[in-house]
Amino acid sequence: MPAQLIDGKALSASIRDHVATEVARLKSNRMAVHLAAILVGDNPAAKVYAENQTRTCAQVGIEYSLLLLPESITQQELHATLVRLNEDESITGIMVHMPLPPHLNPQEIQYGIDVLKDVEGVNPANIGQVVYGQTIIAPATALAAVECVEATGFTIAGSEAVVVGASRIAGKPIALLLTERGATVTLCHILTRDVAAHTSKADIVVVAVGRPNLIGKNHIKPGAVVIDVGINRITSTDAAGNALHKTVGDVNFAEVSQIASHITPVPGGVGPMTVAMLLKNTLRAAKLVYRLENPFTK
Amino acid sequence: MPAQLIDGKALSASIRDHVATEVARLKSNRMAVHLAAILVGDNPAAKVYAENQTRTCAQVGIEYSLLLLPESITQQELHATLVRLNEDESITGIMVHMPLPPHLNPQEIQYGIDVLKDVEGVNPANIGQVVYGQTIIAPATALAAVECVEATGFTIAGSEAVVVGASRIAGKPIALLLTERGATVTLCHILTRDVAAHTSKADIVVVAVGRPNLIGKNHIKPGAVVIDVGINRITSTDAAGNALHKTVGDVNFAEVSQIASHITPVPGGVGPMTVAMLLKNTLRAAKLVYRLENPFTK
Repeated sequence: MPAQLIDGKALSASIRDHVATEVARLKSNRMAVHLAAILVGDNPAAKVYAENQTRTCAQVGIEYSLLLLPESITQQELHATLVRLNEDESITGIMVHMPLPPHLNPQEIQYGIDVLKDVEGVNPANIGQVVYGQTIIAPATALAAVECVEATGFTIAGSEAVVVGASRIAGKPIALLLTERGATVTLCHILTRDVAAHTSKADIVVVAVGRPNLIGKNHIKPGAVVIDVGINRITSTDAAGNALHKTVGDVNFAEVSQIASHITPVPGGVGPMTVAMLLKNTLRAAKLVYRLENPFTK
Repeated sequence: MPAQLIDGKALSASIRDHVATEVARLKSNRMAVHLAAILVGDNPAAKVYAENQTRTCAQVGIEYSLLLLPESITQQELHATLVRLNEDESITGIMVHMPLPPHLNPQEIQYGIDVLKDVEGVNPANIGQVVYGQTIIAPATALAAVECVEATGFTIAGSEAVVVGASRIAGKPIALLLTERGATVTLCHILTRDVAAHTSKADIVVVAVGRPNLIGKNHIKPGAVVIDVGINRITSTDAAGNALHKTVGDVNFAEVSQIASHITPVPGGVGPMTVAMLLKNTLRAAKLVYRLENPFTK
Protein backbone atom coordinates (compact mmCIF):
# COMPACT_ATOMS: atom_id res chain seq x y z
CA MET A 1 0.00 0.00 0.00
CA PRO A 2 1.53 3.30 -1.00
CA ALA A 3 2.23 5.89 1.70
CA GLN A 4 0.14 8.96 2.26
CA LEU A 5 1.89 12.11 1.05
CA ILE A 6 2.59 14.82 3.60
CA ASP A 7 1.65 17.86 1.56
CA GLY A 8 4.15 20.54 2.59
CA LYS A 9 2.68 23.02 0.14
CA ALA A 10 -0.83 22.80 1.56
CA LEU A 11 0.40 22.82 5.19
CA SER A 12 2.63 25.76 4.41
CA ALA A 13 -0.23 27.70 2.82
CA SER A 14 -2.35 27.38 5.93
CA ILE A 15 0.52 28.52 8.16
CA ARG A 16 1.15 31.51 5.90
CA ASP A 17 -2.54 32.44 6.06
CA HIS A 18 -2.36 32.37 9.83
CA VAL A 19 0.81 34.49 9.82
CA ALA A 20 -0.74 37.00 7.38
CA THR A 21 -3.78 37.41 9.63
CA GLU A 22 -1.64 37.94 12.71
CA VAL A 23 0.76 40.34 10.95
CA ALA A 24 -2.22 42.41 9.79
CA ARG A 25 -3.62 42.46 13.31
CA LEU A 26 -0.28 43.72 14.69
CA LYS A 27 0.00 46.31 11.95
CA SER A 28 -3.49 47.62 12.77
CA ASN A 29 -2.11 48.17 16.28
CA ARG A 30 0.85 50.08 14.82
CA MET A 31 3.23 47.18 15.44
CA ALA A 32 4.83 46.51 12.08
CA VAL A 33 6.65 43.24 11.53
CA HIS A 34 9.97 44.08 9.91
CA LEU A 35 12.66 41.54 9.03
CA ALA A 36 16.21 42.74 8.28
CA ALA A 37 18.43 40.29 6.40
CA ILE A 38 22.17 40.69 6.00
CA LEU A 39 23.94 39.39 2.92
CA VAL A 40 27.73 39.69 2.86
CA GLY A 41 29.62 39.56 -0.42
CA ASP A 42 28.60 38.64 -3.89
CA ASN A 43 26.96 35.21 -3.73
CA PRO A 44 24.51 34.80 -6.65
CA ALA A 45 22.64 31.85 -5.04
CA ALA A 46 22.14 33.78 -1.81
CA LYS A 47 20.89 36.75 -3.81
CA VAL A 48 18.24 34.65 -5.55
CA TYR A 49 17.21 33.30 -2.16
CA ALA A 50 17.01 36.82 -0.74
CA GLU A 51 14.88 37.99 -3.67
CA ASN A 52 12.49 35.10 -3.12
CA GLN A 53 12.35 36.05 0.52
CA THR A 54 11.35 39.64 -0.30
CA ARG A 55 8.38 38.28 -2.24
CA THR A 56 7.45 35.69 0.38
CA CYS A 57 7.51 38.28 3.17
CA ALA A 58 5.48 40.75 1.12
CA GLN A 59 2.79 38.10 0.60
CA VAL A 60 2.12 37.92 4.34
CA GLY A 61 2.62 41.63 5.04
CA ILE A 62 6.10 41.40 6.56
CA GLU A 63 8.41 44.30 5.69
CA TYR A 64 11.77 43.08 4.47
CA SER A 65 15.04 45.00 4.27
CA LEU A 66 18.05 43.41 2.65
CA LEU A 67 21.39 44.86 3.75
CA LEU A 68 24.04 44.12 1.14
CA LEU A 69 27.45 44.38 2.79
CA PRO A 70 30.83 44.22 1.05
CA GLU A 71 32.88 41.00 1.02
CA SER A 72 35.68 42.95 2.73
CA ILE A 73 33.69 43.76 5.86
CA THR A 74 35.48 42.96 9.13
CA GLN A 75 34.07 40.94 12.02
CA GLN A 76 33.93 44.13 14.08
CA GLU A 77 32.05 46.07 11.41
CA LEU A 78 29.55 43.26 10.88
CA HIS A 79 29.07 42.97 14.64
CA ALA A 80 28.48 46.73 14.82
CA THR A 81 25.80 46.40 12.14
CA LEU A 82 24.09 43.72 14.23
CA VAL A 83 24.24 45.87 17.35
CA ARG A 84 22.56 48.69 15.42
CA LEU A 85 19.81 46.35 14.17
CA ASN A 86 19.40 44.87 17.68
CA GLU A 87 18.83 48.35 19.06
CA ASP A 88 16.64 49.59 16.19
CA GLU A 89 13.08 49.47 17.53
CA SER A 90 11.62 49.43 14.01
CA ILE A 91 13.35 46.10 13.27
CA THR A 92 11.60 43.08 14.81
CA GLY A 93 13.59 40.29 13.20
CA ILE A 94 17.16 39.73 12.01
CA MET A 95 18.84 37.05 9.93
CA VAL A 96 22.29 36.67 8.41
CA HIS A 97 22.58 34.75 5.14
CA MET A 98 25.10 31.92 5.21
CA PRO A 99 27.73 31.08 4.19
CA LEU A 100 29.80 34.07 5.25
CA PRO A 101 33.20 34.72 3.64
CA PRO A 102 35.87 32.57 5.33
CA HIS A 103 37.49 35.45 7.25
CA LEU A 104 34.31 35.90 9.33
CA ASN A 105 33.40 33.65 12.28
CA PRO A 106 29.74 32.63 11.81
CA GLN A 107 29.30 31.48 15.45
CA GLU A 108 30.41 34.82 16.79
CA ILE A 109 28.07 36.62 14.39
CA GLN A 110 25.08 34.41 15.21
CA TYR A 111 25.83 34.96 18.87
CA GLY A 112 25.52 38.71 18.24
CA ILE A 113 21.91 38.52 17.08
CA ASP A 114 19.44 39.59 19.77
CA VAL A 115 17.82 36.41 21.10
CA LEU A 116 14.32 37.78 20.63
CA LYS A 117 14.95 38.98 17.06
CA ASP A 118 16.74 35.79 16.00
CA VAL A 119 14.18 34.49 13.46
CA GLU A 120 16.40 31.61 12.38
CA GLY A 121 16.94 30.43 15.95
CA VAL A 122 20.70 30.22 15.41
CA ASN A 123 21.93 32.17 18.42
CA PRO A 124 23.47 29.52 20.72
CA ALA A 125 21.22 30.79 23.51
CA ASN A 126 18.18 29.87 21.43
CA ILE A 127 19.63 26.45 20.65
CA GLY A 128 20.27 26.01 24.39
CA GLN A 129 16.66 26.87 25.17
CA VAL A 130 15.64 24.07 22.81
CA VAL A 131 17.87 21.69 24.82
CA TYR A 132 16.21 22.97 27.99
CA GLY A 133 12.81 22.18 26.49
CA GLN A 134 11.92 25.88 26.78
CA THR A 135 12.12 26.89 23.16
CA ILE A 136 11.99 30.63 22.46
CA ILE A 137 12.67 30.39 18.71
CA ALA A 138 13.93 27.16 17.08
CA PRO A 139 15.61 26.74 13.68
CA ALA A 140 12.97 26.78 10.92
CA THR A 141 14.13 23.60 9.17
CA ALA A 142 13.90 21.64 12.40
CA LEU A 143 10.45 23.04 13.15
CA ALA A 144 9.37 22.21 9.59
CA ALA A 145 10.44 18.56 9.92
CA VAL A 146 8.67 18.12 13.25
CA GLU A 147 5.55 19.91 12.00
CA CYS A 148 5.44 17.45 9.08
CA VAL A 149 5.43 14.55 11.56
CA GLU A 150 2.73 16.17 13.66
CA ALA A 151 0.58 16.79 10.58
CA THR A 152 0.20 13.03 10.16
CA GLY A 153 -1.55 12.75 13.52
CA PHE A 154 1.08 10.25 14.64
CA THR A 155 1.76 10.34 18.41
CA ILE A 156 5.41 11.31 18.89
CA ALA A 157 5.47 10.75 22.68
CA GLY A 158 6.72 7.24 23.41
CA SER A 159 7.70 6.55 19.81
CA GLU A 160 11.09 5.47 18.48
CA ALA A 161 12.67 8.05 16.19
CA VAL A 162 15.90 8.08 14.22
CA VAL A 163 17.43 11.23 12.79
CA VAL A 164 20.05 10.69 10.10
CA GLY A 165 22.46 13.61 9.84
CA ALA A 166 23.83 15.60 12.79
CA SER A 167 24.16 19.09 11.33
CA ARG A 168 23.77 22.14 13.50
CA ILE A 169 20.79 23.62 11.73
CA ALA A 170 18.88 20.44 10.89
CA GLY A 171 19.76 17.06 12.44
CA LYS A 172 20.73 18.13 15.95
CA PRO A 173 17.82 20.52 16.58
CA ILE A 174 15.40 18.00 15.01
CA ALA A 175 16.67 15.37 17.47
CA LEU A 176 16.23 17.81 20.35
CA LEU A 177 12.70 18.82 19.33
CA LEU A 178 11.64 15.18 18.94
CA THR A 179 13.13 14.37 22.36
CA GLU A 180 11.23 17.32 23.83
CA ARG A 181 8.04 15.83 22.39
CA GLY A 182 8.71 12.50 24.07
CA ALA A 183 10.33 10.35 21.36
CA THR A 184 13.29 8.10 22.07
CA VAL A 185 15.72 9.54 19.56
CA THR A 186 18.84 8.06 17.99
CA LEU A 187 21.03 10.51 16.12
CA CYS A 188 22.98 8.86 13.28
CA HIS A 189 25.72 10.52 11.28
CA ILE A 190 28.75 9.98 9.11
CA LEU A 191 30.49 7.81 11.72
CA THR A 192 27.50 5.53 12.34
CA ARG A 193 28.52 1.97 11.54
CA ASP A 194 25.10 0.65 10.51
CA VAL A 195 22.44 3.27 9.85
CA ALA A 196 19.88 0.70 8.64
CA ALA A 197 20.13 -1.21 11.95
CA HIS A 198 18.69 1.89 13.60
CA THR A 199 16.30 3.27 10.97
CA SER A 200 14.72 -0.11 10.22
CA LYS A 201 13.33 -0.26 13.77
CA ALA A 202 12.09 3.31 13.97
CA ASP A 203 8.53 4.63 13.90
CA ILE A 204 9.79 7.99 12.65
CA VAL A 205 12.79 8.48 10.36
CA VAL A 206 14.01 11.97 9.55
CA VAL A 207 16.79 12.23 6.98
CA ALA A 208 18.85 15.42 6.70
CA VAL A 209 22.14 14.59 5.04
CA GLY A 210 22.16 15.94 1.48
CA ARG A 211 22.85 12.75 -0.45
CA PRO A 212 20.40 11.40 -3.05
CA ASN A 213 19.05 7.87 -2.49
CA LEU A 214 20.81 7.48 0.85
CA ILE A 215 17.76 5.81 2.38
CA GLY A 216 16.04 2.94 0.56
CA LYS A 217 13.37 0.41 1.39
CA ASN A 218 15.72 -1.75 3.48
CA HIS A 219 16.19 1.17 5.84
CA ILE A 220 12.51 1.59 6.68
CA LYS A 221 10.07 -0.35 8.83
CA PRO A 222 6.70 -0.84 7.13
CA GLY A 223 4.29 1.80 8.39
CA ALA A 224 6.96 4.29 9.48
CA VAL A 225 6.65 8.06 9.04
CA VAL A 226 9.48 9.26 6.77
CA ILE A 227 10.53 12.90 6.61
CA ASP A 228 13.01 13.85 3.91
CA VAL A 229 14.85 17.10 4.67
CA GLY A 230 17.39 16.68 1.86
CA ILE A 231 17.27 18.98 -1.15
CA ASN A 232 19.66 17.76 -3.86
CA ARG A 233 19.82 19.21 -7.33
CA ILE A 234 20.90 16.57 -9.80
CA THR A 235 21.64 16.87 -13.48
CA SER A 236 21.39 14.13 -16.06
CA THR A 237 21.27 14.08 -19.85
CA ASP A 238 18.49 12.73 -22.02
CA ALA A 239 18.92 10.61 -25.17
CA ALA A 240 19.30 13.76 -27.25
CA GLY A 241 22.10 14.99 -25.02
CA ASN A 242 20.07 17.72 -23.32
CA ALA A 243 20.79 18.44 -19.66
CA LEU A 244 17.92 17.56 -17.34
CA HIS A 245 17.72 19.20 -13.92
CA LYS A 246 15.83 17.56 -11.11
CA THR A 247 15.45 18.15 -7.37
CA VAL A 248 15.43 15.05 -5.20
CA GLY A 249 15.67 14.32 -1.49
CA ASP A 250 17.85 11.91 0.47
CA VAL A 251 15.21 9.17 0.36
CA ASN A 252 14.60 6.84 -2.57
CA PHE A 253 11.01 7.99 -2.90
CA ALA A 254 9.88 5.33 -5.39
CA GLU A 255 10.92 2.53 -3.03
CA VAL A 256 10.15 3.99 0.36
CA SER A 257 6.74 5.38 -0.56
CA GLN A 258 5.66 1.77 -1.08
CA ILE A 259 6.19 0.82 2.56
CA ALA A 260 6.05 4.00 4.70
CA SER A 261 2.73 5.10 6.19
CA HIS A 262 3.48 8.76 5.49
CA ILE A 263 6.24 10.43 3.51
CA THR A 264 7.22 13.96 2.49
CA PRO A 265 7.86 14.47 -1.22
CA VAL A 266 10.86 16.44 -2.49
CA PRO A 267 10.12 19.03 -3.73
CA GLY A 268 6.91 20.00 -1.98
CA GLY A 269 7.53 18.62 1.49
CA VAL A 270 9.88 20.04 4.11
CA GLY A 271 11.09 22.81 1.74
CA PRO A 272 7.91 24.92 1.62
CA MET A 273 7.30 24.16 5.29
CA THR A 274 10.72 25.65 6.16
CA VAL A 275 9.78 28.87 4.40
CA ALA A 276 6.49 28.95 6.33
CA MET A 277 8.18 28.26 9.67
CA LEU A 278 10.63 31.11 9.05
CA LEU A 279 7.65 33.43 8.57
CA LYS A 280 6.05 32.02 11.71
CA ASN A 281 9.33 32.61 13.58
CA THR A 282 9.37 36.18 12.27
CA LEU A 283 5.88 36.67 13.68
CA ARG A 284 6.95 35.11 17.00
CA ALA A 285 10.01 37.40 17.16
CA ALA A 286 7.82 40.47 16.59
CA LYS A 287 5.46 39.39 19.36
CA LEU A 288 8.45 38.95 21.69
CA VAL A 289 9.91 42.32 20.73
CA TYR A 290 6.54 44.02 21.28
CA ARG A 291 6.22 42.14 24.57
CA LEU A 292 2.99 40.48 23.48
CA GLU A 293 4.57 37.14 24.37
CA ASN A 294 6.97 36.16 27.13
CA PRO A 295 10.14 34.36 25.99
CA PHE A 296 10.02 32.06 28.99
CA THR A 297 6.52 30.77 28.29
CA LYS A 298 5.52 29.21 25.00
CA MET B 1 35.47 -11.70 34.16
CA PRO B 2 34.79 -8.77 36.45
CA ALA B 3 34.92 -5.26 34.99
CA GLN B 4 37.76 -2.86 35.53
CA LEU B 5 36.83 -0.08 37.94
CA ILE B 6 36.97 3.47 36.65
CA ASP B 7 38.55 5.15 39.65
CA GLY B 8 36.88 8.57 39.85
CA LYS B 9 38.81 9.47 43.00
CA ALA B 10 42.21 8.92 41.41
CA LEU B 11 41.22 10.64 38.12
CA SER B 12 39.77 13.51 40.09
CA ALA B 13 42.95 13.90 42.13
CA SER B 14 45.10 14.25 39.03
CA ILE B 15 42.72 16.84 37.54
CA ARG B 16 42.78 18.80 40.78
CA ASP B 17 46.57 18.74 40.83
CA HIS B 18 46.60 20.16 37.32
CA VAL B 19 44.07 22.85 38.29
CA ALA B 20 46.09 23.76 41.42
CA THR B 21 49.26 24.20 39.35
CA GLU B 22 47.49 26.39 36.81
CA VAL B 23 45.70 28.47 39.47
CA ALA B 24 49.05 29.10 41.18
CA ARG B 25 50.59 30.13 37.87
CA LEU B 26 47.76 32.62 37.25
CA LYS B 27 48.03 33.95 40.79
CA SER B 28 51.75 34.55 40.36
CA ASN B 29 50.77 36.73 37.38
CA ARG B 30 48.31 38.60 39.61
CA MET B 31 45.31 36.88 38.06
CA ALA B 32 43.40 35.44 41.00
CA VAL B 33 40.78 32.77 40.34
CA HIS B 34 37.71 33.75 42.34
CA LEU B 35 34.41 31.86 42.31
CA ALA B 36 31.27 33.55 43.64
CA ALA B 37 28.39 31.25 44.57
CA ILE B 38 24.86 32.41 45.28
CA LEU B 39 22.66 30.55 47.72
CA VAL B 40 19.08 31.75 48.08
CA GLY B 41 17.05 30.89 51.16
CA ASP B 42 17.63 28.48 53.97
CA ASN B 43 18.34 25.08 52.40
CA PRO B 44 20.44 22.97 54.81
CA ALA B 45 21.57 20.49 52.12
CA ALA B 46 22.73 23.29 49.84
CA LYS B 47 24.58 24.85 52.78
CA VAL B 48 26.51 21.64 53.43
CA TYR B 49 27.33 21.46 49.74
CA ALA B 50 28.50 25.08 49.76
CA GLU B 51 30.71 24.45 52.80
CA ASN B 52 32.32 21.47 51.07
CA GLN B 53 32.87 23.68 48.05
CA THR B 54 34.69 26.30 50.12
CA ARG B 55 37.13 23.61 51.25
CA THR B 56 37.50 22.04 47.79
CA CYS B 57 38.25 25.41 46.22
CA ALA B 58 40.74 26.31 48.95
CA GLN B 59 42.64 23.07 48.28
CA VAL B 60 43.41 24.15 44.72
CA GLY B 61 43.92 27.84 45.52
CA ILE B 62 40.58 29.11 44.20
CA GLU B 63 39.06 31.94 46.21
CA TYR B 64 35.45 31.27 47.07
CA SER B 65 32.77 33.75 48.13
CA LEU B 66 29.36 32.50 49.20
CA LEU B 67 26.58 35.06 48.91
CA LEU B 68 23.67 34.10 51.17
CA LEU B 69 20.56 35.83 49.91
CA PRO B 70 17.15 35.90 51.64
CA GLU B 71 14.35 33.55 50.54
CA SER B 72 12.23 36.65 49.86
CA ILE B 73 14.54 38.06 47.18
CA THR B 74 12.78 39.04 43.93
CA GLN B 75 13.75 37.97 40.42
CA GLN B 76 14.83 41.56 39.73
CA GLU B 77 17.00 41.79 42.84
CA LEU B 78 18.66 38.46 42.13
CA HIS B 79 19.25 39.50 38.53
CA ALA B 80 20.80 42.76 39.75
CA THR B 81 23.16 40.75 41.97
CA LEU B 82 24.23 38.72 38.93
CA VAL B 83 24.80 41.86 36.87
CA ARG B 84 27.03 43.18 39.65
CA LEU B 85 29.02 39.93 39.75
CA ASN B 86 29.23 39.84 35.95
CA GLU B 87 30.74 43.32 35.97
CA ASP B 88 33.02 42.76 38.96
CA GLU B 89 36.49 42.24 37.52
CA SER B 90 37.71 40.49 40.65
CA ILE B 91 35.14 37.69 40.17
CA THR B 92 36.13 35.15 37.51
CA GLY B 93 33.42 32.56 38.04
CA ILE B 94 29.76 32.54 39.11
CA MET B 95 27.35 29.82 40.11
CA VAL B 96 23.83 29.77 41.54
CA HIS B 97 22.90 26.91 43.83
CA MET B 98 19.75 25.07 42.83
CA PRO B 99 16.95 24.61 43.59
CA LEU B 100 15.76 28.21 43.84
CA PRO B 101 12.56 29.06 45.75
CA PRO B 102 9.51 28.49 43.52
CA HIS B 103 8.79 32.20 42.93
CA LEU B 104 12.08 32.55 41.01
CA ASN B 105 12.56 31.42 37.39
CA PRO B 106 15.80 29.41 37.24
CA GLN B 107 16.11 29.63 33.43
CA GLU B 108 15.96 33.40 33.51
CA ILE B 109 18.55 33.50 36.30
CA GLN B 110 20.92 31.08 34.55
CA TYR B 111 20.53 33.15 31.43
CA GLY B 112 21.75 36.17 33.40
CA ILE B 113 25.15 34.62 34.21
CA ASP B 114 27.93 35.95 32.00
CA VAL B 115 28.74 33.20 29.48
CA LEU B 116 32.46 33.34 30.26
CA LYS B 117 31.97 33.22 34.05
CA ASP B 118 29.35 30.45 33.91
CA VAL B 119 31.37 27.67 35.62
CA GLU B 120 28.42 25.27 35.64
CA GLY B 121 27.77 25.71 31.93
CA VAL B 122 24.06 26.30 32.55
CA ASN B 123 23.53 29.49 30.58
CA PRO B 124 21.48 28.42 27.52
CA ALA B 125 24.13 30.02 25.32
CA ASN B 126 26.73 27.63 26.73
CA ILE B 127 24.39 24.67 26.22
CA GLY B 128 23.87 25.88 22.65
CA GLN B 129 27.61 26.01 22.06
CA VAL B 130 27.75 22.34 23.12
CA VAL B 131 25.09 21.59 20.47
CA TYR B 132 27.17 23.49 17.94
CA GLY B 133 30.18 21.34 18.86
CA GLN B 134 32.00 24.51 19.94
CA THR B 135 31.89 24.08 23.68
CA ILE B 136 32.94 27.09 25.73
CA ILE B 137 32.03 25.62 29.14
CA ALA B 138 29.90 22.46 29.48
CA PRO B 139 28.00 21.24 32.55
CA ALA B 140 30.39 19.56 34.98
CA THR B 141 28.38 16.36 35.45
CA ALA B 142 28.26 15.77 31.70
CA LEU B 143 32.00 16.42 31.36
CA ALA B 144 32.64 14.06 34.28
CA ALA B 145 30.69 11.22 32.65
CA VAL B 146 32.46 11.64 29.31
CA GLU B 147 35.86 11.95 30.99
CA CYS B 148 35.19 8.62 32.74
CA VAL B 149 34.57 6.98 29.35
CA GLU B 150 37.71 8.53 27.90
CA ALA B 151 39.78 7.37 30.86
CA THR B 152 39.16 3.75 29.80
CA GLY B 153 40.95 4.34 26.51
CA PHE B 154 37.83 3.22 24.64
CA THR B 155 37.39 4.91 21.25
CA ILE B 156 34.15 6.91 21.35
CA ALA B 157 34.14 7.85 17.65
CA GLY B 158 32.08 5.34 15.69
CA SER B 159 30.76 3.60 18.81
CA GLU B 160 27.15 3.00 19.80
CA ALA B 161 26.17 4.84 22.97
CA VAL B 162 22.95 4.95 24.97
CA VAL B 163 22.22 7.60 27.57
CA VAL B 164 19.41 6.78 29.98
CA GLY B 165 17.80 9.89 31.47
CA ALA B 166 17.16 13.13 29.57
CA SER B 167 17.66 15.75 32.27
CA ARG B 168 18.92 19.21 31.41
CA ILE B 169 22.09 19.06 33.45
CA ALA B 170 23.07 15.44 32.89
CA GLY B 171 21.45 13.24 30.23
CA LYS B 172 20.97 15.79 27.46
CA PRO B 173 24.43 17.39 27.63
CA ILE B 174 26.02 13.93 27.99
CA ALA B 175 24.25 12.85 24.79
CA LEU B 176 25.46 16.00 23.03
CA LEU B 177 29.06 15.60 24.17
CA LEU B 178 29.14 11.95 23.09
CA THR B 179 27.66 12.92 19.70
CA GLU B 180 30.33 15.61 19.37
CA ARG B 181 32.95 12.91 20.00
CA GLY B 182 31.53 10.77 17.20
CA ALA B 183 29.29 8.25 18.96
CA THR B 184 25.88 7.27 17.59
CA VAL B 185 23.77 8.24 20.58
CA THR B 186 20.31 7.12 21.64
CA LEU B 187 18.73 9.16 24.41
CA CYS B 188 16.28 7.11 26.49
CA HIS B 189 13.96 8.52 29.13
CA ILE B 190 10.77 7.99 31.10
CA LEU B 191 8.68 7.52 27.94
CA THR B 192 11.01 4.96 26.33
CA ARG B 193 9.07 1.75 25.77
CA ASP B 194 11.98 -0.69 26.04
CA VAL B 195 15.18 0.70 27.52
CA ALA B 196 16.92 -2.70 27.51
CA ALA B 197 16.36 -3.07 23.75
CA HIS B 198 18.64 -0.06 23.33
CA THR B 199 21.15 -0.45 26.15
CA SER B 200 21.77 -4.15 25.48
CA LYS B 201 23.25 -3.28 22.08
CA ALA B 202 25.40 -0.36 23.19
CA ASP B 203 29.16 -0.13 23.55
CA ILE B 204 28.75 2.69 26.07
CA VAL B 205 25.86 3.03 28.52
CA VAL B 206 25.53 6.15 30.67
CA VAL B 207 22.78 6.12 33.28
CA ALA B 208 21.60 9.37 34.86
CA VAL B 209 18.13 8.85 36.26
CA GLY B 210 18.27 8.71 40.06
CA ARG B 211 16.67 5.31 40.65
CA PRO B 212 18.57 2.50 42.42
CA ASN B 213 18.99 -0.76 40.48
CA LEU B 214 17.35 0.62 37.33
CA ILE B 215 19.95 -1.10 35.14
CA GLY B 216 20.76 -4.78 35.63
CA LYS B 217 22.75 -7.40 33.77
CA ASN B 218 20.03 -7.90 31.16
CA HIS B 219 20.45 -4.29 30.09
CA ILE B 220 24.15 -4.55 29.29
CA LYS B 221 26.12 -6.08 26.44
CA PRO B 222 29.16 -8.05 27.66
CA GLY B 223 32.22 -5.84 27.38
CA ALA B 224 30.36 -2.52 27.44
CA VAL B 225 31.60 0.58 29.26
CA VAL B 226 29.06 1.50 31.96
CA ILE B 227 28.97 4.96 33.54
CA ASP B 228 26.69 5.42 36.54
CA VAL B 229 25.78 9.06 37.17
CA GLY B 230 23.07 8.27 39.74
CA ILE B 231 23.62 9.14 43.37
CA ASN B 232 20.87 7.67 45.54
CA ARG B 233 20.93 7.69 49.32
CA ILE B 234 19.06 4.70 50.67
CA THR B 235 18.25 3.80 54.22
CA SER B 236 17.65 0.34 55.61
CA THR B 237 17.53 -1.13 59.11
CA ASP B 238 19.76 -3.86 60.49
CA ALA B 239 18.62 -6.79 62.67
CA ALA B 240 18.95 -4.65 65.79
CA GLY B 241 16.69 -1.97 64.27
CA ASN B 242 19.46 0.54 63.60
CA ALA B 243 19.15 2.71 60.50
CA LEU B 244 21.81 2.02 57.89
CA HIS B 245 22.61 4.69 55.30
CA LYS B 246 24.15 3.78 52.01
CA THR B 247 24.86 5.59 48.73
CA VAL B 248 24.19 3.65 45.53
CA GLY B 249 23.96 4.46 41.85
CA ASP B 250 21.33 3.63 39.23
CA VAL B 251 23.16 0.48 38.15
CA ASN B 252 23.01 -2.86 39.93
CA PHE B 253 26.75 -2.88 40.49
CA ALA B 254 27.04 -6.50 41.72
CA GLU B 255 25.41 -7.80 38.52
CA VAL B 256 26.72 -5.42 35.90
CA SER B 257 30.32 -5.41 37.12
CA GLN B 258 30.40 -9.10 36.18
CA ILE B 259 29.83 -8.41 32.47
CA ALA B 260 30.91 -4.83 31.70
CA SER B 261 34.47 -4.16 30.58
CA HIS B 262 34.66 -0.97 32.65
CA ILE B 263 32.31 0.48 35.25
CA THR B 264 32.22 3.48 37.58
CA PRO B 265 31.53 2.70 41.23
CA VAL B 266 29.10 4.75 43.32
CA PRO B 267 30.41 6.38 45.40
CA GLY B 268 33.87 7.06 44.01
CA GLY B 269 33.09 7.33 40.30
CA VAL B 270 31.31 10.19 38.54
CA GLY B 271 30.73 12.04 41.84
CA PRO B 272 34.34 13.06 42.61
CA MET B 273 34.91 13.63 38.89
CA THR B 274 32.05 16.15 38.82
CA VAL B 275 33.69 18.11 41.62
CA ALA B 276 36.99 18.06 39.71
CA MET B 277 35.34 19.17 36.46
CA LEU B 278 33.68 22.09 38.23
CA LEU B 279 37.12 23.20 39.40
CA LYS B 280 38.47 22.72 35.88
CA ASN B 281 35.56 24.80 34.54
CA THR B 282 36.38 27.49 37.11
CA LEU B 283 39.95 27.57 35.82
CA ARG B 284 38.68 27.70 32.22
CA ALA B 285 36.33 30.60 33.10
CA ALA B 286 39.20 32.55 34.67
CA LYS B 287 41.34 32.02 31.57
CA LEU B 288 38.47 33.29 29.41
CA VAL B 289 37.88 36.29 31.66
CA TYR B 290 41.60 37.15 31.64
CA ARG B 291 41.61 36.63 27.86
CA LEU B 292 44.24 33.90 28.08
CA GLU B 293 41.90 31.67 26.08
CA ASN B 294 39.48 32.48 23.26
CA PRO B 295 35.90 31.28 23.80
CA PHE B 296 35.59 30.32 20.14
CA THR B 297 38.59 27.99 20.14
CA LYS B 298 38.95 25.10 22.52
